[in-house]
Amino acid sequence: MNKNLLVAQSGGPTAAINATLAGIIEEALKSSTVEKVYGAKYGIQGVLQENFIELSSIKNINDILETLSVTPAAALGSCRYKLQDPAKDPSEFQSIIDIFRKNEIGYFIYIGGNDSMDTVWKLSEYIKEHNIDDIVVIGAPKTIDNDLYGIDHCPGFGSAAKYIATSISELERELEVYDTPYVIVVEMMGRNAGWLTAAAALAEGNNSNVPYLIYLEEHPFDLNNFISDVRGELSICNNLIVAISEGIRDKSGKMICDYADRDQSKDAFGHTIATGAGRVLENAIRSNIGCKVRYIELNLLQRCAGHLLSETDIRESLELGRNAVRLALNGENGVMSTLTRLPGEKYEVSYGAADISQIADREKKVPVEWINEEGNGVKEEMIRYLTPLVQGELSCKYENGIPKYIVL
Amino acid sequence: MNKNLLVAQSGGPTAAINATLAGIIEEALKSSTVEKVYGAKYGIQGVLQENFIELSSIKNINDILETLSVTPAAALGSCRYKLQDPAKDPSEFQSIIDIFRKNEIGYFIYIGGNDSMDTVWKLSEYIKEHNIDDIVVIGAPKTIDNDLYGIDHCPGFGSAAKYIATSISELERELEVYDTPYVIVVEMMGRNAGWLTAAAALAEGNNSNVPYLIYLEEHPFDLNNFISDVRGELSICNNLIVAISEGIRDKSGKMICDYADRDQSKDAFGHTIATGAGRVLENAIRSNIGCKVRYIELNLLQRCAGHLLSETDIRESLELGRNAVRLALNGENGVMSTLTRLPGEKYEVSYGAADISQIADREKKVPVEWINEEGNGVKEEMIRYLTPLVQGELSCKYENGIPKYIVL
Repeated sequence: MNKNLLVAQSGGPTAAINATLAGIIEEALKSSTVEKVYGAKYGIQGVLQENFIELSSIKNINDILETLSVTPAAALGSCRYKLQDPAKDPSEFQSIIDIFRKNEIGYFIYIGGNDSMDTVWKLSEYIKEHNIDDIVVIGAPKTIDNDLYGIDHCPGFGSAAKYIATSISELERELEVYDTPYVIVVEMMGRNAGWLTAAAALAEGNNSNVPYLIYLEEHPFDLNNFISDVRGELSICNNLIVAISEGIRDKSGKMICDYADRDQSKDAFGHTIATGAGRVLENAIRSNIGCKVRYIELNLLQRCAGHLLSETDIRESLELGRNAVRLALNGENGVMSTLTRLPGEKYEVSYGAADISQIADREKKVPVEWINEEGNGVKEEMIRYLTPLVQGELSCKYENGIPKYIVL
Repeated sequence: MNKNLLVAQSGGPTAAINATLAGIIEEALKSSTVEKVYGAKYGIQGVLQENFIELSSIKNINDILETLSVTPAAALGSCRYKLQDPAKDPSEFQSIIDIFRKNEIGYFIYIGGNDSMDTVWKLSEYIKEHNIDDIVVIGAPKTIDNDLYGIDHCPGFGSAAKYIATSISELERELEVYDTPYVIVVEMMGRNAGWLTAAAALAEGNNSNVPYLIYLEEHPFDLNNFISDVRGELSICNNLIVAISEGIRDKSGKMICDYADRDQSKDAFGHTIATGAGRVLENAIRSNIGCKVRYIELNLLQRCAGHLLSETDIRESLELGRNAVRLALNGENGVMSTLTRLPGEKYEVSYGAADISQIADREKKVPVEWINEEGNGVKEEMIRYLTPLVQGELSCKYENGIPKYIVL
């Protein structure tokens, strides 16, 4: 019997999450066992509110998939809503199942990061425990943070890494303009993992000999060592790039941004919204060294740059979406669509399924062996890992000089 | 008799100043009356120090001009050095003439903004007053601020405007992701003119109905009116883009960034380095309205984005360089290479010369008639002015996924 497929997006936006959505829509439309393709607006909240769009009824839907795949953010909308613990209150889970039944949904694919995979896990467990055999729940990965377990690297990360390395290459051109000491401090996102910051290393040495100091949150940060690192570099070169993770901490675990005198705010999950570590370092350089220094926060720009995408990232994100549909049609429940990097010199990946229980609510950090001993740079292993992920250029379409994006 | 040509760059970097340099080198190499082409490193300071590169002797120089023209910042380096007033101390001017004579330089082209055109003016006047008839000094315009007189729009501005409109289009996608009230405040450069901020209007209405509030420094800013504007927009739409100039001021002339509690710093010309007005507005929205708000400072990124250039801007910047050489060879002294927008529906420009005395040390502001009465948006005239300047896309070359730039 034919069933309907429902897809939703969750968590923070990325430049590639709509490519995965496009892959899901494309594969579902091709399948003869999927009747209708629905999208829930605003993640699991939209599922609970039955806030659905019938994607398969959109006129010429196939024609817009290419543009959708290079549209950043989350075309279906997102949420940061966390479902109740089903052991304590299963009512939300039962509501979801009721809504699925009412809308004849047999396949639910949830695109998101760690928190969203937790939702997939709990919902798929609920389905197993209640012997529901006509509904499967599948996770599709995304996060610019690259901190998901069960996958070699996350959709969205490669495009963010390319944006970061490109922007820093350009800031390096700025640096070289004056013949006086000048430091640019660039702060990257990534709450608890330094993958994005490591991407700065891709720019190092590419166009000049400007030194880079790169501090990831996986290594304790020491302000005195930092000033000494900066002094050392400036003694041999007038110019210096400092790349830091927003979440760098000292050895006691105190965040460097908390050295600044400002209010802290927290998101719906109680995570600290970390900004400002770079401002602390900018001020430290100014007062301790006294040279010209400028702090650049890449902020949201690094995750929504549809005008500068990694072709590799978008291709893989699309395929992870198609693969998620294939897993759903195979009747798998409680898995995440994943890719594995194959051994060998040439970069190749294979697509498969990962057990969701091993992924939910965990964070994959940068291996400490990939960080140098001084904690101010990354090793060759990191460059080898990152380089294939930023290959190829893809961009949005422009209309009258301005990006044209898909709004669902 | 053949003479040598010297070119130098000055002021803040832009994404198009090297295109003008490429145009100058190309045209000078083609000329049979130019013997050697020299570049002075670090602007007029490099001239005084005789810090020259012989550009015409670089192997395959013609082959690198295309890449040079999409390389951001200033490949020859820049300075913010202001020459002494020749009425008080003519020694620097005499030194420059001596250095020109020694190196058989008959043509000097200085690429820069208001302050650099002041240097061109004073040096050309010195030449006239001393009846020096074998040396000419020509200005070539550049500034992302778009605040030069004597030209319809400035090289570098179109690419910065395109970067701004594109980035804001992408931030707008971010905004629409959640179904709760959310404001993004974006701060643009432009010390005393709001042209760059006005470019935000190019993104408005392009992909959605998200409202925009745009505040230029040409209109007095009032914090109470601002909060009332934001409240008004949020009462009809959950999402809002606020675009502001770094230098917005209240009616007493106090800069909004000075409402923040932080140190002020000044550049070599005594200009206030204005940052942080957006932070003041972010905090005002948070404490008065209480909704989600995020402050994005485009900072240096908006003027060095070689990966996202306006094809129109680069084409015109190249031609302004070629035109500067033609003016020099014609024996003109004390003019700036310029372009004029021709009347008519179709966008066309012609190239010519502008009297430098009318340009130096002045700033062209946005006409108040192009700002709406409430001071929170721009009129149709502004859109008509801006639209042709962002047409066409040009990008740097990539090597192994990362931009490859020219370093001279």
